[in-house]
Amino acid sequence: MIVVPAERLLKLGNDIFKAQGLAPEKAEFLVETLVEATLTGHDSHGVRYFITYSDRIRENHIKIDAEPIIVQETPTTAHIDGGYAPGQITAKKLTEVAVAKAKENGVSAVGAFNCNHIGRIGYYSNWAAKQGVVAIMFVNVGGPSVSVYGGMGKSFGTNPISVGIPTGEAKPFLTDYATSVVAAGKISVATAKHAKIPLHWTRDKQGKPTDDPLAFKDGGWLLPFGEYKGYALQLVSELLGAVLTGSRVGMDPGQIPPSTNGVFMIAVDPGAFVGLDTFREGVDNVIRRVKEIEPEPGKRVMIPGEPEWESKESRLAKGVPLAEETWDGIVNLVKELGLKIEDY
Amino acid sequence: MIVVPAERLLKLGNDIFKAQGLAPEKAEFLVETLVEATLTGHDSHGVRYFITYSDRIRENHIKIDAEPIIVQETPTTAHIDGGYAPGQITAKKLTEVAVAKAKENGVSAVGAFNCNHIGRIGYYSNWAAKQGVVAIMFVNVGGPSVSVYGGMGKSFGTNPISVGIPTGEAKPFLTDYATSVVAAGKISVATAKHAKIPLHWTRDKQGKPTDDPLAFKDGGWLLPFGEYKGYALQLVSELLGAVLTGSRVGMDPGQIPPSTNGVFMIAVDPGAFVGLDTFREGVDNVIRRVKEIEPEPGKRVMIPGEPEWESKESRLAKGVPLAEETWDGIVNLVKELGLKIEDY
Repeated sequence: MIVVPAERLLKLGNDIFKAQGLAPEKAEFLVETLVEATLTGHDSHGVRYFITYSDRIRENHIKIDAEPIIVQETPTTAHIDGGYAPGQITAKKLTEVAVAKAKENGVSAVGAFNCNHIGRIGYYSNWAAKQGVVAIMFVNVGGPSVSVYGGMGKSFGTNPISVGIPTGEAKPFLTDYATSVVAAGKISVATAKHAKIPLHWTRDKQGKPTDDPLAFKDGGWLLPFGEYKGYALQLVSELLGAVLTGSRVGMDPGQIPPSTNGVFMIAVDPGAFVGLDTFREGVDNVIRRVKEIEPEPGKRVMIPGEPEWESKESRLAKGVPLAEETWDGIVNLVKELGLKIEDY
Repeated sequence: MIVVPAERLLKLGNDIFKAQGLAPEKAEFLVETLVEATLTGHDSHGVRYFITYSDRIRENHIKIDAEPIIVQETPTTAHIDGGYAPGQITAKKLTEVAVAKAKENGVSAVGAFNCNHIGRIGYYSNWAAKQGVVAIMFVNVGGPSVSVYGGMGKSFGTNPISVGIPTGEAKPFLTDYATSVVAAGKISVATAKHAKIPLHWTRDKQGKPTDDPLAFKDGGWLLPFGEYKGYALQLVSELLGAVLTGSRVGMDPGQIPPSTNGVFMIAVDPGAFVGLDTFREGVDNVIRRVKEIEPEPGKRVMIPGEPEWESKESRLAKGVPLAEETWDGIVNLVKELGLKIEDY
């Protein structure tokens, strides 16, 4: 484990993607989202993607010159063809359009197809919420890793959902999670630590409950969270994220390009209801009362989003801990691109 | 247990509410929703409410002459004051307005406050989906029964969410559930059967895991489903269902009128994206592929909504099984209202 200041990761990332021909303002946004994911503790969606995305640029799965374009539009809706631009660039456009249309008309719905991996989806819903709208996202993930409830084998991707809600004085309220019990990254963490995993996380290749994290890579699968209730949301993310937007469904293995997302966002302006100021006060009031609840022994009562901003405050202050493997990969990439790690 | 044809329950219900002064077309809709809940297997939200709602009409919590009115409106949004009309009448208006605005403008968001209990929320999202729009509902429930994740005591109502999605040839796709692991009704069922319950359903009054269904009534509480993930949705239903619409938050016990709902619905027209026909085909395709998945031994792979339409087909064919207590209550009510049970 090595510790790197966030500022250094931002500079490195910007030069890594600019060296590959990405326009500076696009590199800046892409890298900002990845560093933010790492800062908020979502290492699985963070700066290790400097490497993965660079591979995909080289293989022409990510098209650095492509621009997402709106192919169909009303005052409250937009349908976006991402053209396999970097996923973050398409998701940025989707969020900007959704927020602007919601503020103008009270509510909006925007979907994107031909979209590469957009990273941590909570970035976009949180960003929308900071601009004073409620944002709800349903996203499908190309390539199966999760079973359906009651079924054998990998059927869908981790199909995340996210809701960002404006607050007043309270820190941002943000739900952002896979509809599997855990993301695949948590299995990797347990594998690295030689730790056992809870029985409700995965099945082995025979469909048997297992506490062995290696069983997932060896033909096993993740389970949907919350039994049939999380399974229902897994399907909703598939039907709205992929089918409604015209994106690829996630059921077939070996998809090229890999790890695409079908993205659907709804944005709502509180001005069409109680008004933004009253809404912010009411949200703060509920959050305050929840934080006053007596915790179970040995537990904490946390607000959705709170683990993320705790991690961000800590990592901004103390630096970002990175696995040696991730750091070595970034250093190698920097060399390959003809840059000097000493300059950062 | 006695078995009653659905037709008989419809006739009884209509006359029960008309005898109390409810306009015939309102009685018809109200009773249709309650019989549909019973037919689809949701007895907790079904015809036993003939009795509960009659009590609330007598106590003037449900105002039979009140009309829900739109207090603020745009081409895509509406904010409705239910005026404590029967909750179903307010939810009917909310759904009609949401569907019409979505079809006209691609997307809509409609919220209602001063709203009595609206019954099974899946009725409305399913009804919207049958008209060709996607409907997403977040609803809060007045009066606490469920803890927050990691917290002691009852904090929120069962705060349901529901998503209805149009299909083509496939049966309706409908998610509709409480954000607690189970609804309180399932605890009552276990109590009646003297059965033990799973440890992740409830806590006793000391906050300890328990398999005793009696512990819930004796100061215990329900748990949110899916650990922190279901807890996040419990809060989203509170913030959108109650705070955004200006409804009462569910945190305080002893609320009058009892069991109110704050209701928020978003509706989306697939015509703004891939088009309704293509969407229906794509949804059917995903459903067909899911139904082809090999089930785990001893399990079935079911589509959200499938248990409901299986129950409905069976109960339409064989009659509706009712607990003696429910039937006796209906018979007594009929007598009190000066009607004759022999006439039905």
